[in-house]
Amino acid sequence: MPVNIPTLSAEHLLPVPGVSLGIAEAGIKKSNRKDLLVMTLSKDTHVAGVFTQNRFCAAPVVVAKEHLAKSSVHALMVNTGNANAGTGEIGLQHTGATCMALADLLGCEPCQVLPFSTGVIMEPLPVDRLIKGLPAALVDLKPDNWFAAAQTIMTTDIVPKGVSRQIELNGATITITGIAKGSGMIRPNMATMLGFIATDAKINQAMLQRMARNVADQSFNCITVDGDTSTNDAFVLMATGCADHAEICDQESVAFKHLQATVTAVAATLAQMIVRDGEGATKFITVQVDDGQHVNECKQVAYAVAHSPLIKTAFFASDPNLGRILAAIGYAGIDDLDVNRIQLYLGDVLVAENGGRAPAYREEDGQQVMNQSEIVVRIVLNRGAASATVWTCDFSYDYVKINADYRS
Amino acid sequence: MPVNIPTLSAEHLLPVPGVSLGIAEAGIKKSNRKDLLVMTLSKDTHVAGVFTQNRFCAAPVVVAKEHLAKSSVHALMVNTGNANAGTGEIGLQHTGATCMALADLLGCEPCQVLPFSTGVIMEPLPVDRLIKGLPAALVDLKPDNWFAAAQTIMTTDIVPKGVSRQIELNGATITITGIAKGSGMIRPNMATMLGFIATDAKINQAMLQRMARNVADQSFNCITVDGDTSTNDAFVLMATGCADHAEICDQESVAFKHLQATVTAVAATLAQMIVRDGEGATKFITVQVDDGQHVNECKQVAYAVAHSPLIKTAFFASDPNLGRILAAIGYAGIDDLDVNRIQLYLGDVLVAENGGRAPAYREEDGQQVMNQSEIVVRIVLNRGAASATVWTCDFSYDYVKINADYRS
Repeated sequence: MPVNIPTLSAEHLLPVPGVSLGIAEAGIKKSNRKDLLVMTLSKDTHVAGVFTQNRFCAAPVVVAKEHLAKSSVHALMVNTGNANAGTGEIGLQHTGATCMALADLLGCEPCQVLPFSTGVIMEPLPVDRLIKGLPAALVDLKPDNWFAAAQTIMTTDIVPKGVSRQIELNGATITITGIAKGSGMIRPNMATMLGFIATDAKINQAMLQRMARNVADQSFNCITVDGDTSTNDAFVLMATGCADHAEICDQESVAFKHLQATVTAVAATLAQMIVRDGEGATKFITVQVDDGQHVNECKQVAYAVAHSPLIKTAFFASDPNLGRILAAIGYAGIDDLDVNRIQLYLGDVLVAENGGRAPAYREEDGQQVMNQSEIVVRIVLNRGAASATVWTCDFSYDYVKINADYRS
Repeated sequence: MPVNIPTLSAEHLLPVPGVSLGIAEAGIKKSNRKDLLVMTLSKDTHVAGVFTQNRFCAAPVVVAKEHLAKSSVHALMVNTGNANAGTGEIGLQHTGATCMALADLLGCEPCQVLPFSTGVIMEPLPVDRLIKGLPAALVDLKPDNWFAAAQTIMTTDIVPKGVSRQIELNGATITITGIAKGSGMIRPNMATMLGFIATDAKINQAMLQRMARNVADQSFNCITVDGDTSTNDAFVLMATGCADHAEICDQESVAFKHLQATVTAVAATLAQMIVRDGEGATKFITVQVDDGQHVNECKQVAYAVAHSPLIKTAFFASDPNLGRILAAIGYAGIDDLDVNRIQLYLGDVLVAENGGRAPAYREEDGQQVMNQSEIVVRIVLNRGAASATVWTCDFSYDYVKINADYRS
């Protein structure tokens, strides 16, 4: 069961002026299941994207990057049930055909459509069914359809994921609404499985692209469920410009910083929802590494801890078998690491220092923290001023069950 | 249950002239459980060791490396039930005290004792109980005690692991016998959890050290169960020199190569036994990567596949969800990888080529290979002449169970 995700309902997700969403059951995943989403954007919308670094990246990722580079964007099209990844040349043709079909219906150019797919890898996209589903999605287009959109993009997700915020910006009230999906094959490298955030703020393209990358680095790029970087990760940030305020053109401006902070908060909430709904998750773990020489080494240590099956199963069991954390720190790959300078905290409890167990540490204190559903592991390297945080979940029987049964 | 390990019994493990082994129940692990092993070596034995690269390496690893560097070796002492790792300065003192106690009993110097520990991390070594157990182990010393020794060093291992070979070398018949333990926290980096191989061959120290490293790289350094590099890994190669043949002093000699090939075969058998008895294992997986630019990139790809929880759970389920393998190849970290040149084989079945599913691939062919308990995954990168092989196991409910319950 998801770890502490408040139940989402339609009224939590505010419409964003300039954005409409339409849903259909195209029969890609299975019948009677929403599996196709179309989002249309008003004319002056700027769109920025960040995509997976996986070399086996999916056909829709290749095409979306290409379209984004050469054109303004009028629509996004997302299907679940099939990732169209590991499908070679024919996969690219399939994606091209779907973009062309949607463009025809909308009266725009194919390159104004960004395609996204998620689901099983190395199976041909059922392109005819997808195309047949498009008209129904267009009939359904409306601004207050974000909740249904969040449901539509789910795969092994148990709950839909979305969040809205409103802020005052240059004298106007603007809205930011985001949705995301993802539960397994989650260790984003530059983006997450699928995350879409829209705002009616007015911001130029260069500033929006910079913001998308900054936001991804502080949110989706900080999570891991299983260490598997997906072939289809994409994070898209859309700004329709429908709000009535002066355009943001300067990354040093108060408005840029305010908007970026809010979008980051939205993205971090979505990213954490993905972990909270991580496959089989029963606990939400924050791994914070402080006082490293640089951010990269802090991330290295944080990911070593966050990926260790031994540590993740100990969290599942609420077993303070914390020597496993020391072992992971030790093999994280920092060659000149002096283990005698490290402090390990579980919650507020100092567990280890001077290369071994802290004299005041009592197992019952560690046990008390382990029993909680939200746990912070803090590792202080004492060799610099850099920090990094990674969010992850535990590793349970259900992770094995979900992934052993995925296609059945 | 272990995957295809022939049942070992005492007569399978041949004595090695010059080596005696003694066992005791010291009450370190739990009562009525063999947990202490002493091996004594004849006077002119050469010993070479390879140890974990984990920065949080255990006190006995620190001490064993130190002793090996400065002295000849008269005895090895191994306890299970406690790793004496993450124990700081007091851990080193404890190990020092045990070496001193054994040296007193044997009439040698403490630095002639190599200590080894395996078990739970960050708990103080019960040093008094260990020392009290030593006399019983010495009373038990005998050359034909290898089977009991293999049983003694087990932790979460289900079966004891050992193998013997005999070869003709420079006109003499020499024996090689090895034992190993390990089942979880297995992703050796320069060595394995614990592996001991002895021979009565006559070989000088420099050649033996070189051989130990070569052998480790072709055996223990090619396995992974869970990607967790232990704090206590050690592989020790001992040559008593009791056999009656000319000493091996040249790595280009036929005798060196013959001995190294045989020791490598023994070590690879032991290493594979560790994987076959990997925590919760139901399948034995060989990941072979061919035609890479260099061995390192082949290993990178092989380990990405061998560590992916998504792939390992699919093996457990016998589900040919092979797109997950493409995803892992894609995120293995080779930046200029051309996925269109890659071939993926499952057993003899060509699964993927040209960036997608091979036209002739039929799911029932993949299913047939997946149903087997021994599976070879072969990835051909087609960008060079280098190869690497990694042996691993699947990821089952029992892995979670074993590690959630480890200390209870």
